[in-house]
Amino acid sequence: MKCEVISIGDELLIGQTINTNASWIGEQINILGFTISHCLVISDLKNDIINALDQAYKRSDIIIITGGLGPTNDDITKHTLTEYFNTYLELDIEIEKNIIDYFTNRNLPILQSNRDQALIPKSCQVLPNSRGSASGMWFEKNGVVFISLPGVPYEMKGIMNDHVFSRLLALKGDENIIINKTIRTHGMGESFLAEVIKSWEKKLANENIKLAYLPSPGIVKLRLSIIGKDRKSSEEKLNSYILKLKKLIPEQIYGYDTDTMEGVVSNLLKEKKHTLSTAESCTGGNISKMITSISGSSSFFNGSVVTYTNKSKSQLLDVNDQVIEKHGAVSQQVVEQMAKNVRLKFDSDYGISTSGIAGPTGGTADKPVGTVWIAVASEEKVISKKLNLGYNRERNIHVSSLSVLNLLRLELIKN
Amino acid sequence: MKCEVISIGDELLIGQTINTNASWIGEQINILGFTISHCLVISDLKNDIINALDQAYKRSDIIIITGGLGPTNDDITKHTLTEYFNTYLELDIEIEKNIIDYFTNRNLPILQSNRDQALIPKSCQVLPNSRGSASGMWFEKNGVVFISLPGVPYEMKGIMNDHVFSRLLALKGDENIIINKTIRTHGMGESFLAEVIKSWEKKLANENIKLAYLPSPGIVKLRLSIIGKDRKSSEEKLNSYILKLKKLIPEQIYGYDTDTMEGVVSNLLKEKKHTLSTAESCTGGNISKMITSISGSSSFFNGSVVTYTNKSKSQLLDVNDQVIEKHGAVSQQVVEQMAKNVRLKFDSDYGISTSGIAGPTGGTADKPVGTVWIAVASEEKVISKKLNLGYNRERNIHVSSLSVLNLLRLELIKN
Repeated sequence: MKCEVISIGDELLIGQTINTNASWIGEQINILGFTISHCLVISDLKNDIINALDQAYKRSDIIIITGGLGPTNDDITKHTLTEYFNTYLELDIEIEKNIIDYFTNRNLPILQSNRDQALIPKSCQVLPNSRGSASGMWFEKNGVVFISLPGVPYEMKGIMNDHVFSRLLALKGDENIIINKTIRTHGMGESFLAEVIKSWEKKLANENIKLAYLPSPGIVKLRLSIIGKDRKSSEEKLNSYILKLKKLIPEQIYGYDTDTMEGVVSNLLKEKKHTLSTAESCTGGNISKMITSISGSSSFFNGSVVTYTNKSKSQLLDVNDQVIEKHGAVSQQVVEQMAKNVRLKFDSDYGISTSGIAGPTGGTADKPVGTVWIAVASEEKVISKKLNLGYNRERNIHVSSLSVLNLLRLELIKN
Repeated sequence: MKCEVISIGDELLIGQTINTNASWIGEQINILGFTISHCLVISDLKNDIINALDQAYKRSDIIIITGGLGPTNDDITKHTLTEYFNTYLELDIEIEKNIIDYFTNRNLPILQSNRDQALIPKSCQVLPNSRGSASGMWFEKNGVVFISLPGVPYEMKGIMNDHVFSRLLALKGDENIIINKTIRTHGMGESFLAEVIKSWEKKLANENIKLAYLPSPGIVKLRLSIIGKDRKSSEEKLNSYILKLKKLIPEQIYGYDTDTMEGVVSNLLKEKKHTLSTAESCTGGNISKMITSISGSSSFFNGSVVTYTNKSKSQLLDVNDQVIEKHGAVSQQVVEQMAKNVRLKFDSDYGISTSGIAGPTGGTADKPVGTVWIAVASEEKVISKKLNLGYNRERNIHVSSLSVLNLLRLELIKN
């Protein structure tokens, strides 16, 4: 079935807001097994909206419209749809009650324009919005479905999850089901990974499983999509292939679907009741920032020292001056001392550290930009590793952070 | 003049890549004074491309097409345009030479498919690409302009800057010129700011100056657009209004156009040859990360201590245990000690600090989620400030970081 997305709003056209709604809807709809053929952005202008609906109606089965459902005068989507479907607005008592509750619970005054959001086109089915006052609407015209949703991403996603996905799957009727699973890997480039898993990949085709490589800095995601008649047996088949993959690249797979490296490491630390502190040079606080972005991280994260100068490495982390002098700040000796000492300073179970040349300047023939040392220290031992990254500062910081967290992850699952 | 953008590529439709090209083009084109009416995303399918070109031709003056110019078989934009404009491909010797140089300089092998990128539709004008091997193309049909550009953002932006903007301005001919200037403010919400600058704003209309409020967490950008006949006098008029605004909100304006808070603070530190260190609790390393994202920050940034526990505040920053006990970690007393001590620990000219409840949990009746103390210490004094933010963790971390950097900025420009 063919699907298209129409996003309404000037702020999208002039680049004030990036159209993440269309990307998110496209991704989800694709996962459900629909084909997305067009995504259009237009103004809040009646004629442009009607022309876009006409065009979409001619070529698609499902049309998802976002935006223009707010309470102000420039929001005209609902009125335009009412006219387009030759219907009229009627007060929906239940929606009105929800809107009044929504505002009362938040101690906000209710304006007439908010109450008017309970006026719903007679011919549509309401898709209730538990996160705001603009209802979603589901229209049908000669078998073509039009779904109108608010433009606020949080509200749009709520209605999609609560009501739209299940209805779309039902629409597909007796067609096959599709199950997707994303495997997240770190530590092997796309082409190298492809080489290592070649024979495994070859077998997928016979099983109606599709594989997509989705590379981003430091991460290659492998998305598997299985097409089958029955959910349970398809899931079992998919899982058996994931198990086989795990044997091929045991150190690289750090999570699935929406997992993040910092989330996976945090869960392991919580589970094993271990604490962590970090000593960062070239990553400049990025690792600490990643970990503390997780709510509740204070239960296992003691803190960090960012030592951006040689002096601070010795003053704050007791790294031996002579060792810095002899081997340089970007060296195995220094990064290991940093990890050991930051563990002791914060009384943590684990200490991790980074020292490198993030670039774009600061490289030498001996240690070019992108040379990074990382280390993980526990009570028993210190392990360290040298990375040879590229010339992009932001990317080097990001990949170094992922790498040392992965090194820690591998230690945590061993113990 | 009406403009629209057509982006070609499956990766955009299925949400694998977010369409930042369309946002960037929309923003730039709007600044130049063109109206953007439609942005469309479609597949690499010949019929879809031709239909989209037909539609766009009927309603727009300028059509900017991105994507589908790569050397592989799924890139069909050039061939489709050749057919659409009823022309043929011809080898462009100069482009061929550029492509050979491009690959030779990078020590890369040249495939036939790369050489074929020098085959250019006869009826177009070439827009040379100094950043890659796919040329931009400029077609005209009965006064309507079609511009085809590569989908790689870096290459697309290069061609736009090098060739397209100047040609588009020339197209507008004797129409007025437009100059835009964005003023970046921090520390005052949108509605409060609007109230404070009301009388100034009123005068703008008489001068043909438009004002747009562009709010984002912790920042309100004010975009001024002046329409006039002459560049010099228009710029002078705009600057005189900016000077007047500066008198109304002297503490809030931290920069212009693409300035960032961390960039502005870094430049001030470099200029005045002052050094900085940071002590972060609730911001968890975010401030340090912001500063070290700037290449060359090691010349003024000594480092940071992230003290995420009470114990680490006393162990690493010598914050008095009894003071923590008596006033709590989120207090004026603690945040001031953190700033003073981190300055001394790192031998820096300035120390800045944060301590707060980022949320979503951890609040009390006394100190609800969003309560944050920030401080700036120099040799002479310590100043501190309490923020009352909201319930969103990410936003609280971001706004607290901006706030303490702005407090430092105000100190730096005083001294």
